[in-house]
Amino acid sequence: MPEWRKDPVVDRWVIIATERAKRPVDFRCPPDELHPGNCPLCVGNEDKTPPEILAFREAESPANRPGWWVRVVPNKFPAVRADERYYSWRDGVYEAMNGIGVHEVIVESTDHEPDLINQTDYQVEEVLWAWRARSLDLRADTRLKYIQIFKNKGRTGGASLEHTHSQLVGIPMVPVDVSQELAGFHEYRRNRGTCVFCDMVQQEIARQERVVMENDRFVCLSPYAARFPFEMWIVPKHHQPDFGQIGEEDVRELAPILRGALGKLDGTVCQPPYNMVLHTAPINVGGEIFYHWHFEILPRLTILAGYELGTGYFINPTPPELAAEALRETAVPAPHQIPTTFKEEVLRYV
Amino acid sequence: MPEWRKDPVVDRWVIIATERAKRPVDFRCPPDELHPGNCPLCVGNEDKTPPEILAFREAESPANRPGWWVRVVPNKFPAVRADERYYSWRDGVYEAMNGIGVHEVIVESTDHEPDLINQTDYQVEEVLWAWRARSLDLRADTRLKYIQIFKNKGRTGGASLEHTHSQLVGIPMVPVDVSQELAGFHEYRRNRGTCVFCDMVQQEIARQERVVMENDRFVCLSPYAARFPFEMWIVPKHHQPDFGQIGEEDVRELAPILRGALGKLDGTVCQPPYNMVLHTAPINVGGEIFYHWHFEILPRLTILAGYELGTGYFINPTPPELAAEALRETAVPAPHQIPTTFKEEVLRYV
Repeated sequence: MPEWRKDPVVDRWVIIATERAKRPVDFRCPPDELHPGNCPLCVGNEDKTPPEILAFREAESPANRPGWWVRVVPNKFPAVRADERYYSWRDGVYEAMNGIGVHEVIVESTDHEPDLINQTDYQVEEVLWAWRARSLDLRADTRLKYIQIFKNKGRTGGASLEHTHSQLVGIPMVPVDVSQELAGFHEYRRNRGTCVFCDMVQQEIARQERVVMENDRFVCLSPYAARFPFEMWIVPKHHQPDFGQIGEEDVRELAPILRGALGKLDGTVCQPPYNMVLHTAPINVGGEIFYHWHFEILPRLTILAGYELGTGYFINPTPPELAAEALRETAVPAPHQIPTTFKEEVLRYV
Repeated sequence: MPEWRKDPVVDRWVIIATERAKRPVDFRCPPDELHPGNCPLCVGNEDKTPPEILAFREAESPANRPGWWVRVVPNKFPAVRADERYYSWRDGVYEAMNGIGVHEVIVESTDHEPDLINQTDYQVEEVLWAWRARSLDLRADTRLKYIQIFKNKGRTGGASLEHTHSQLVGIPMVPVDVSQELAGFHEYRRNRGTCVFCDMVQQEIARQERVVMENDRFVCLSPYAARFPFEMWIVPKHHQPDFGQIGEEDVRELAPILRGALGKLDGTVCQPPYNMVLHTAPINVGGEIFYHWHFEILPRLTILAGYELGTGYFINPTPPELAAEALRETAVPAPHQIPTTFKEEVLRYV
């Protein structure tokens, strides 16, 4: 049974994932190569995944069969499990609880495409709706305090499957990084009475030095204290704490910015591995939450080594102003996936 | 000029290293391979590094010539620079200061060896003395608040040179991860009146479940909430806040534990990349510091991806009890470097 374990000193919880325990011998050979053939995420291979939790699919098409365009399934090798009663224990200086949580995979295309950038804006909108639907649905489980949605691309980015997909992990505590951010938002408001992200967006748009692209509702910028070369944040221009609050207008404007940012990254640095991470308000914690949700796109061109792991600080060799300039100048490639007609008659889940 | 930049929300400082600024084109090709020939750290190539800051060398041998067995030089491509007056500035929501700091390389062998494990315990002792000497010397610069000593091994571990070496970065703030640890130590003492690491060491030694090896003064254990497979911590059994406080007895007992831990790792998982990080008390900050220094050895067999970068939490597929068992059972290889006689007539720096 997997366990959450808390470091005895700092508020850092680790999943000890016993159910996929790796022994010394597992590390002797390099792990399996990605397998584009026989891919469990491709259309037609629905029986290679656990049964679907959600799918946007043609009206009256049966579950776990073709006819879908976005599909959400449980992770076949979950780090955490939902089907447990919560309990925790102490052991001398240590503290632990059982490994409750959820771990899902969002399949973002029927085709064996390596990234979202070849999808239409419409398809990206559908992925956003799927993320929102799962985020809203899962908060009914009041044990969960945070929904982490993220996307790993490339081997160095931690992807074990090539087919474009994202992941969702729902966990029973507010992560240490999110707690720190919340504290920062609250302190800024105490000092200046406003939202630090609202102020930042205003300042960045006025200067245009680190802005990569923008539309009425969203701005994509390379952040002032970027940790990674070509790091980008996608931030709503209006104050919105929780990703789950996005509406139709938001989705329509967010999709081209998200596809655009990833496309610009791909063209600027030649298809780098990256992680994309949603930062949003915790759930089921009560009280007022002062936050401003956003996406962070973290290209993995540098290696996190002893300095970063010891300090929590980073060394970034590419000033974000230079990164933003290069990204601005790169054209967004046109999608090569043509929307199929059945998508017009969607049975929209939300 | 390099800059420290603070994230507007959390207490996370990033070095924007303009002097080695990487442009998009720098990422198009894979970086240079390690070069065992023509290595700037090998004996005889002293002119390929900046002039030495410290060397343990034969009496009357001239600086920057052979005759040394441990040598400390400035990093040729420093992320930060010492020769600046300190100044800071604000820019709207942002805060920055100039990139002051020091960045040094400790050459741990005259020979082109890939790790410390082939050195004698005596040579490892000398490396420990060099770390201590630099740590003590640098605190004369009262701008520096933390000395981060670390070692990267292997490409995936972030090493750009194969020849065994460690690095030291002195920075003008207490890193966010160290601040969190300090807060944890202080809170534990407030609640229980003791040191959490002293209590942890006692509990681990009584149980022997996660202990890898130990002697009178040090214990090497796989920590309860290990973030990485085969993670090990080397902890003094006696309470000691600051690595700079180690004396002759400590050094003599630490060297075989350090060499032993790295040797066991090497034999258990077949020469994995790793990072080793010294955690020690901040310097020049005033007030009482309640801390317990230790080394963390972090094998890089897993990939830090979206989940880890979004939450600050980790997924570890190898329970530390299993790791400790495998490490205990692996013999420490004998060193193949024989101490040369000139080492007996050392001009000890400290």
